[in-house]
Amino acid sequence: MREMTKQFLEAAFAGESMAHMKYLIFAEEAEKKGLIKLSKLFKAIAYAEYVHAKNHFKVLKKLSDDMKDNVQSCIDGETFEIEEMYPVYKNAAEFQDEKDAVRSTHFALEAEKIHADMYKKAKELVEKGEDYPAEKIYICPVCGYTVEDEAPEKCPVCGAPKDKFVEF
Amino acid sequence: MREMTKQFLEAAFAGESMAHMKYLIFAEEAEKKGLIKLSKLFKAIAYAEYVHAKNHFKVLKKLSDDMKDNVQSCIDGETFEIEEMYPVYKNAAEFQDEKDAVRSTHFALEAEKIHADMYKKAKELVEKGEDYPAEKIYICPVCGYTVEDEAPEKCPVCGAPKDKFVEF
Ligand SMILES: [Fe+2]
Ligand SMILES: [Fe+2]
Ligand SMILES: [Fe+2]
Ligand SMILES: [Fe+2]
Ligand SMILES: [Fe+2]
Ligand SMILES: [Fe+2]
Repeated sequence: MREMTKQFLEAAFAGESMAHMKYLIFAEEAEKKGLIKLSKLFKAIAYAEYVHAKNHFKVLKKLSDDMKDNVQSCIDGETFEIEEMYPVYKNAAEFQDEKDAVRSTHFALEAEKIHADMYKKAKELVEKGEDYPAEKIYICPVCGYTVEDEAPEKCPVCGAPKDKFVEF
Repeated sequence: MREMTKQFLEAAFAGESMAHMKYLIFAEEAEKKGLIKLSKLFKAIAYAEYVHAKNHFKVLKKLSDDMKDNVQSCIDGETFEIEEMYPVYKNAAEFQDEKDAVRSTHFALEAEKIHADMYKKAKELVEKGEDYPAEKIYICPVCGYTVEDEAPEKCPVCGAPKDKFVEF
């Protein structure tokens, strides 16, 4: 693919991903305010943006037919966030004494470490032709802390109680 | 907020949104391949990235307590995509004779026009304290075409049949 078209599609993928995310956040907020059909509008349009992002992603040949390559791309992204991005952003927020930004980057950094490990385990299994073993995965809705099989009594990163965890 | 911290949080929001999107795409692909628990892992971690993105978004004060402001932010985003971003990207793809990129940008551009109109209608209603009126919204899973109340026999943008449409 020509380089300029590639750069534009990558920017379009970023734009669609951010629009999708924004609409999901607004959908949750609309639901909290009792605007149920507005919430549904946000969720439906968020799905349309998912379709757009997926189309661009495929044209960019970033979706591999071999799941091993896809899981490797997840390991690479999480590793960059753990080793470079979040330590630098968190350090900058501390340096500028921006406490809310310190918290939001700290929460993300802690969860990404777990994600990288899970994807590394997933890659080994996929290479052997096996599925991931965990029956249940639990996510802390406050900080994103991620754990297999059972939620903890209290989130070890942010202290949220067990009954708030979201089950997958 | 200090400008550098703000710029870093905006970049982190973009990174989380793209990671979330990539994991949803891989979840769909894993499910197609019968890797059901790997698919669940992708979906769970995608939700953790949603939590991270939402935390950064709130620290950036981009979530308003007034839904009117949130809907306006959607109108602004869709309008930029319709008037600037997608016409330029599609034109560049045509100029470079990149047919797949022409198709994926054309599909997005057509849907964004509908999204802008829906959000404009939503904003008028929210200003009057009313919910959105549509009971059902249908999305074409091939091109993101968006329609209220009933799916068409054939998608007017890409030709996908009625039974493929996703209902919200
Ligand atoms: Fe879109
Ligand atoms: Fe992660
Ligand atoms: Fe937590
Ligand atoms: Fe994250
Ligand atoms: Fe849109
Ligand atoms: Fe379509």
